[in-house]
Amino acid sequence: MQDNAITSVGIDFGGTSVKLGVCRGGDLLITDEPLPTANYSGPAALIGAMAERVAKLKTQFPDIAAIGVGVPGLVDFDHGFVHELTNVPGWKHVPLKAILGEKTGLPVVVDNDANAMTYAEFRYGAARGLRNVVGLTMGTGIGGGMVLDGRMYRGSGCAAGEIGQMSIHFDGRPGHYGNLGALEKYTGNSQIAEHAVKRYAEACVEKEIEECTPKKIADAAQAGDDIARQIWGEVADWLGTALSSIAWLLNPDAFVIGGGVAQAGDLIFRPLNQKVQSMLSTVVWERLQILPAHFSNEAGIIGNAALAADALNAPQA
Amino acid sequence: MQDNAITSVGIDFGGTSVKLGVCRGGDLLITDEPLPTANYSGPAALIGAMAERVAKLKTQFPDIAAIGVGVPGLVDFDHGFVHELTNVPGWKHVPLKAILGEKTGLPVVVDNDANAMTYAEFRYGAARGLRNVVGLTMGTGIGGGMVLDGRMYRGSGCAAGEIGQMSIHFDGRPGHYGNLGALEKYTGNSQIAEHAVKRYAEACVEKEIEECTPKKIADAAQAGDDIARQIWGEVADWLGTALSSIAWLLNPDAFVIGGGVAQAGDLIFRPLNQKVQSMLSTVVWERLQILPAHFSNEAGIIGNAALAADALNAPQA
Repeated sequence: MQDNAITSVGIDFGGTSVKLGVCRGGDLLITDEPLPTANYSGPAALIGAMAERVAKLKTQFPDIAAIGVGVPGLVDFDHGFVHELTNVPGWKHVPLKAILGEKTGLPVVVDNDANAMTYAEFRYGAARGLRNVVGLTMGTGIGGGMVLDGRMYRGSGCAAGEIGQMSIHFDGRPGHYGNLGALEKYTGNSQIAEHAVKRYAEACVEKEIEECTPKKIADAAQAGDDIARQIWGEVADWLGTALSSIAWLLNPDAFVIGGGVAQAGDLIFRPLNQKVQSMLSTVVWERLQILPAHFSNEAGIIGNAALAADALNAPQA
Repeated sequence: MQDNAITSVGIDFGGTSVKLGVCRGGDLLITDEPLPTANYSGPAALIGAMAERVAKLKTQFPDIAAIGVGVPGLVDFDHGFVHELTNVPGWKHVPLKAILGEKTGLPVVVDNDANAMTYAEFRYGAARGLRNVVGLTMGTGIGGGMVLDGRMYRGSGCAAGEIGQMSIHFDGRPGHYGNLGALEKYTGNSQIAEHAVKRYAEACVEKEIEECTPKKIADAAQAGDDIARQIWGEVADWLGTALSSIAWLLNPDAFVIGGGVAQAGDLIFRPLNQKVQSMLSTVVWERLQILPAHFSNEAGIIGNAALAADALNAPQA
């Protein structure tokens, strides 16, 4: 896919705020003031506000040619239809692409946020130039996206990439759907914190759950705390089990990992590499990179803008 | 992809024999006498014999336009280069496509056997008309193949689809590569047999390992043997854990399962469906079918012939 000079708006629709920016190629030209999601009574009001912002940005960048919106939930990509956003009241069965397209007169692409993050990394970030890329966003839950053979892969119901629900233990902890051994019940932020509290307690160190965020465990490990290092090793074992299964299945070029856990840097990436290598054949391992995400907060804006721009050139992007 | 009237040869290269057939569309027009693999001293002799057979078949079907070969091992698909066949002595670094193409004057496609099986089911078998299909071949080991967004997906090193190596337990039984919890160490034919011997022993029933093939455990379950039914339930739990993880990741339309285990029919498919449904969200489950393979011994011939024919029309097939 060649780089193009299309200017597009990326909208990163989160449960807390809606972030907007204008991109050209991989460059974020401007970021607009976020819209607080809760200030709008429902889809009509919020989509109206998005359209106003786009109109304003268009006075500054008249060449804006497309809009990409990423949402935290299930989307019908082909129709740009939002099935449901569990964390945003009133967002159920919303034809976002149709409404925003009509209000702005621009082509609109709607995708989910993990796909947008993965696409940003594939097009302009850590996985640029690679062909088969699996993205993970690690936070309260664990989301994922995939670019396979150079194209975004969405699955039959646009529900692919739910890496946090994959099982790492056939008789393990139940996930949100009762699914035994769900990865995010081991390596979600809360689960890591709970596990840390337990490990510290075993060593007769009393810690509150708030003292055990990924950031604080990383700081402790950096400062030489053996228990904190051990915790990262265990997180690497769990996460590495899931990554190695995905690698056996997809034989990808790279995993790109974003979110709080990834910010622990070498503390997680070193044991994670060791674990994944120990679980793979040479053939699968030798092509594989496990990379921290290049983008952070701006990933959504850049990824959605890129999806919209590339859709103008190649509808299947 | 439209059905075409291209006539092609499918060659199913196994450790025991090399099976050949002529196909047009999904029809197997003729099957030739198999070549016993061990009768040939090495690649040159065996490829020579394949070429002679193709020449003979071409006198009967002058419109043969392509050859597809499936091999039991790792292949560089783009170059039709066989890296190594662990069960066939002397087959290491063999440019099969180049040699067979030169000897026959026909375009040749080389792929691995699990991909060919999956492609046969996708084009002309149980998954015909579907878009995202995961095939499994269950035997001593467990292989797999994937058609994603209507195209064969092979991965970065043509090593995708190793479903038998995926982990179902982060601290489970080591697989061939030391990979903990490898699925095939639970649901490979030998492992099922060993597990059955153990379950019978717990019930004070002495059984030899030879009495515990998938076929014999299926017969016992059919005859009302409760232990045999319980064993199929356990196999369904293990296999279902892996399938549900794949479904969360890929959101496919179908799994197509072939091999000895699949021949147990409802004994395995009923508990397997229950298990997989219990592990998924409605959105992922409602589009998913778990299907027995339509083809059996002829899958390799039909799949390889189809890959070769479709490559003439669409090089990316």
